[in-house]
Amino acid sequence: MGAQAQRTEEWADVTPDAARRLLTAAVEAFAERGYHATTTRDIAGRAGMSPAALYIHYRTKEELLYRISGVGHRLALGILRQARDGAGTPAERLADAVRRFVRWHAEHHTTARVVQYELGALGEEHYAEIVALRRDTDGAVRDIIEDGVAAGDFDVPDVRGTTLAVLSLCIDVARWFNADGKRSPGEVGELYASLVLRMVGCAQER
Amino acid sequence: MGAQAQRTEEWADVTPDAARRLLTAAVEAFAERGYHATTTRDIAGRAGMSPAALYIHYRTKEELLYRISGVGHRLALGILRQARDGAGTPAERLADAVRRFVRWHAEHHTTARVVQYELGALGEEHYAEIVALRRDTDGAVRDIIEDGVAAGDFDVPDVRGTTLAVLSLCIDVARWFNADGKRSPGEVGELYASLVLRMVGCAQER
Repeated sequence: MGAQAQRTEEWADVTPDAARRLLTAAVEAFAERGYHATTTRDIAGRAGMSPAALYIHYRTKEELLYRISGVGHRLALGILRQARDGAGTPAERLADAVRRFVRWHAEHHTTARVVQYELGALGEEHYAEIVALRRDTDGAVRDIIEDGVAAGDFDVPDVRGTTLAVLSLCIDVARWFNADGKRSPGEVGELYASLVLRMVGCAQER
Repeated sequence: MGAQAQRTEEWADVTPDAARRLLTAAVEAFAERGYHATTTRDIAGRAGMSPAALYIHYRTKEELLYRISGVGHRLALGILRQARDGAGTPAERLADAVRRFVRWHAEHHTTARVVQYELGALGEEHYAEIVALRRDTDGAVRDIIEDGVAAGDFDVPDVRGTTLAVLSLCIDVARWFNADGKRSPGEVGELYASLVLRMVGCAQER
């Protein structure tokens, strides 16, 4: 799947088309120059629109960031919940969660970077809403690890800390992943799934 | 050690005092607003100096970023090389490397974020120089892992990929670490050392 197809899929729920074009333009501008160095005029220009046309869809630059952050966090949470609620042993579900979460961060690394690095620019209410989504994301992974511990399949002395580390490892793929590099998103996902099973002391990996 | 003492230690080699003050002001400004949204006037103002006084020490804003990046990368490399060249088994040296590298990223998270997230703003020559330092950093960790594999202490099917994952896990501490949070830099370092020994399939951890 090409970069264009991924972008389309990522923002598929955003309508109308003009609103979606503005969001993808904002992601690119924020990623290149940072949130604070980007103006709504820059974003409108990238989308081939006038600043006035932008304001029909988004009242402020912060609202664009909030929408981007919401889409990114909801997709990530959806991926992890689907893995958590899937069939299979805790080890299979954890490996599935990591594979898919890593792939998402590799394929959508530009969006993921904006989402992760510009959190501080969100307004207070929006920030609180995003933090709640992050807590749920954390909870989905913690649930799988706790299932594995309860089943006697995992050996995890510090469940909260290990959950944090697993998520951190996967999220940081967005920082270093290079689409022209040697490893495909799927290959990184496969490697990381095996490393994470080791981190949780999975019996099959011992 | 307080934040002020850490900052002093971090930039201790930068002289004269005015040059050091400008660097720490630049780190704070870049971290808050991003490189592209920061002007040399902002940086001089934060340091209590005039823009003209800034230019005595740094010709451009990029030169400030380059100096910050150089100091950060050289400190990180020094930490890992010291651990690599220390006494002890590969497991002890790897645990030592992770503990110290994590502590550095937790204690100096503001500098580390600027160093990691603004790489793309470096000029071509400066970027090449920093990439070489990053390759050496990677090499120091890979050396320890290879020692462990050669000694039969570690079981690592993919040494390059695992090295990348170990470094990534430690570096991302700078993103999420909160000085007011529940875990101290030392506690995160300790947890991560044990997780990394599991990632390399260390015999004692199996």
